[in-house]
This record gives sequence, C-alpha cells and structure tokens, in this order.
Amino acid sequence: MVHNFSLVHDDIMDNDEMRHGVPTVHKKYGMPIAILAGDVLFSKAFQIISNSKLSDSATMQLVSKLAKACVDICEGQLLDIKMAEERKIPSQADYITMIGKKTAALFDVSCAMGAICASNKSKDVSNLSSFGRNLGIAFQITDDLIGVMGDPKVTKKPVGNDLREGKKSLPIIMAIKLAKGKDKKIILKAFGNSKVTRKDLNKAVEVIRSLGIEESVRGQAQKYSEKAKKSLSKYSGSAKSELITLLDFVVKRSV
Amino acid sequence: MVHNFSLVHDDIMDNDEMRHGVPTVHKKYGMPIAILAGDVLFSKAFQIISNSKLSDSATMQLVSKLAKACVDICEGQLLDIKMAEERKIPSQADYITMIGKKTAALFDVSCAMGAICASNKSKDVSNLSSFGRNLGIAFQITDDLIGVMGDPKVTKKPVGNDLREGKKSLPIIMAIKLAKGKDKKIILKAFGNSKVTRKDLNKAVEVIRSLGIEESVRGQAQKYSEKAKKSLSKYSGSAKSELITLLDFVVKRSV
Repeated sequence: MVHNFSLVHDDIMDNDEMRHGVPTVHKKYGMPIAILAGDVLFSKAFQIISNSKLSDSATMQLVSKLAKACVDICEGQLLDIKMAEERKIPSQADYITMIGKKTAALFDVSCAMGAICASNKSKDVSNLSSFGRNLGIAFQITDDLIGVMGDPKVTKKPVGNDLREGKKSLPIIMAIKLAKGKDKKIILKAFGNSKVTRKDLNKAVEVIRSLGIEESVRGQAQKYSEKAKKSLSKYSGSAKSELITLLDFVVKRSV
Repeated sequence: MVHNFSLVHDDIMDNDEMRHGVPTVHKKYGMPIAILAGDVLFSKAFQIISNSKLSDSATMQLVSKLAKACVDICEGQLLDIKMAEERKIPSQADYITMIGKKTAALFDVSCAMGAICASNKSKDVSNLSSFGRNLGIAFQITDDLIGVMGDPKVTKKPVGNDLREGKKSLPIIMAIKLAKGKDKKIILKAFGNSKVTRKDLNKAVEVIRSLGIEESVRGQAQKYSEKAKKSLSKYSGSAKSELITLLDFVVKRSV
C-alpha cells in the first residue's frame, strides 16, 4: 500500500531509477505520466469510498480519516526532506515522529478504515488504528535496517546503500551516536559520500554491525510490534492470527 | 482555481520555469516539494469538505463529484500529453474532448459544488454544472488563443510561444488546416521548432493573423459562452450578474 501511494514521491526523493528490481514509473513513463498516475490513484481512492454501500455517516468518516492521513503523509515526507537537508543528526524521537507521519499514518488509517467498514464501533476503530500505527512504525524501522545492512540479492541495492546516500534513518542515527574514535571516522567517511569506495563502504557496515546496531534496531521494532499486538488483545479468531502473522513477518523478515 | 490545481502538472508539461511572470513551484522549491504541495492541496480539499456542516448526504455528493472530476482531469492531462506526442494534428472535436476533461471538468465541479452547498436541488446542480463546463471550455479556448497571439507584455512569453512549442491547441489546429501553399510552409517552419528565429516566428504569427484565426477562435469561445449563459436563463439577481460578468471577462480578455 505504501508503495502504491508513494509511487512517485519516494522514487523522486531517492533519485532511484529502480525499485525492488524493476524500473520506477517516472523512469519508464516519464515524470508527467508518473505524477498523473499518483493523482489518479489518489482520486480513485476517494471515488471508491464515495460509492461505498455503507451509511453516509460511516462513509464520511472514511473520507475524513483518509484525507487527514494524506495530509499527514505529505507532512511526513516534508519532514524527511528537511531532515536530509539539515546537517545535524536528528534525535531518535524526531525520527519516530517523521516515520509516524510518512509511513505509519497510512497503516493506521488503512486499519481504522477496515474497522469502520466492519463494525464502526469506536473502540474497534481505535484498537485497529493503534495496531496499524505501531505496525507501520515497526515496518519502517525494519525497512531502514535493511536499507543499511540488507542482503543485496534481496534488496537489489548494494550493502550500505542508505549510508552512502546519507539517509538519517534509525540504524545510522544510532551508529553515529554510539561510535567512538576510529569507528566513528570510518562511518562518517562513508556517510553521504557518493564517491566512497566499495571497500570503505563495506568497512563502515562492518563497524555498524560490530556495534550491535542490528540487535538494537530490531529491539526497537520489536517494541512497537509488542504495542501493536497489545491493541488486539481483546480479539480472537483467525483474522487476529493473520494480523499477528503479518506483524511477525514485518519485524522478522531477513536482512 | 485551475492554476492552484495544476501547480505541478502544467509546469512540468510546459517545461516552464516561469508562470505568469513568477518562478514555478518546482523551480523555486524543487520537484519533491512541488509534488507534495500539490498532494497537500488535493488532500486539504477533501478534508475541508468532510468537515463541512452540510448533511452527510450532501457532503457525500461533494466528495463523489470532486473525486470523479479529479480522475477526469488526470485523463485530460494524459490526453494532452498523448496529443502532443503524436505526429497527427487532432480534429477540433478531439481538442474539445481533451480540454473538456483537462480544464472544464474542474470549472464544472466547482460550480456544481456551489449549487450543492446552496440549494442541493438537482435542477440547480445540473444548470450550474453546465454553466461551469461551458465557461471552462470558453476559458481554455481563449487561453490557447493568447498562447499563440498574446501580447508578450501581458503573457510574459514571446508571441507565438505555443506555436514554437508545437502545442496542438485550437488556433494552431485551425491555422494548419486552413493555410495553403506558402502560408502553410511558413507556419510549419515555426511549429514545434525550438530553434526557429524570432523573425520566422513573427512571420508565422502574422500569417495566422491574416487567416482570420483570431476571429474564428473567438467565435468558438463565444459559442460556448452563449451555452453557459443559457444555463443561467431561469435565474436573476446580482449573483447571476456576477457570473455573467466573469463569463464575459473570460472570453473577451485582450490578447
């Protein structure tokens, strides 16, 4: 879902020509058509909702929540750009605020909208909303871990890609804060350095690995995963099991 | 309204760095922020509607109509791109279909939404919808005339700009169809030729002028303006006068 939505934005922001091993929309069809494709998906979402068979009042809630989430996502993307432009390394709290809007807002609203369509009881809506938000944060933290230490065969990107691109994602924030002396120098030599050698980049990733960043970052993702699980505590049955399976997959998927 | 909405699209499609004498958003803030600005405006529209104090049923109509219009506008922009890419000169009917979606859909929905907010009587909604659609077509025809023969002091673009850029707008379609022999050669020498000399471009615009294209195109705009006026025939009062003044301004504004 995130990928559909961010079809254009992420691609442009990353300046990528490939995504998950296939050419990006703006690379394949050009920028104007890519932007239009994003806008059509955007409009279609509201069109589908407005043609729903729910009560007008439930439908209105769907529209209102989705519109609010879209504004939040744009704000999150903007925070991401600002963070990338600034010299200072953000705090962990700033990073969580940013991904809360950029990524988790869409997971949140998607789950909340499911609850509105199903029961429309306010307790269910807030439980599912909380599940989605924490799932989204756990997803993004894990995704950012993969961006630094991921297996190139899976990510189709070189190891340390996000480090070389100077992204201020959680593993990188933690590594820069934790590293001392020579280790810190090795990391900073690769950080945001498009001309770093493959050898120096691998060295930096090794340092990050030796600092135990993977375990710490997975621990953070796990924390949000536990919160998500707690939001479902009063439910049972197969639907719940599916959601928990999804949650486990998201935080445990291999780097 | 069209300009807010097409903040990003038109700019990219025209490949302009200036618009109405001021830098475009993507020129001033960069592409990612320009796209986000467009998306925020998009989302804000639905957010404002969903917080309206109208009945849920009226609000739902607003959402449904706006979402449909947004899809149409995207389709219209796509038709515009396709038309520009194709070698063949489109028919006048193809051009009207394209601007009907690209431009008039937004005028149409804006007026219809006004009627929904005011009375929500289906006759009023369809009258105002028809007014907006014909106003939008008249607006775009006139705008395209200005794009070819407009005064550079007003347009901040050189005379014949759209001709040099190879746009298949109504005045250009009509001129290419009508011109014969030497006249046609002069027009085609400038059409879509970014390296055309100022002298040859001026010559081509003079030929277009001598063919009476301005009068024919204004006649077309006038036809849609009359249709728009007819949609308001059952109304009276100051609001109607304002709409008629707007309509007259749109088709008569000086080139």
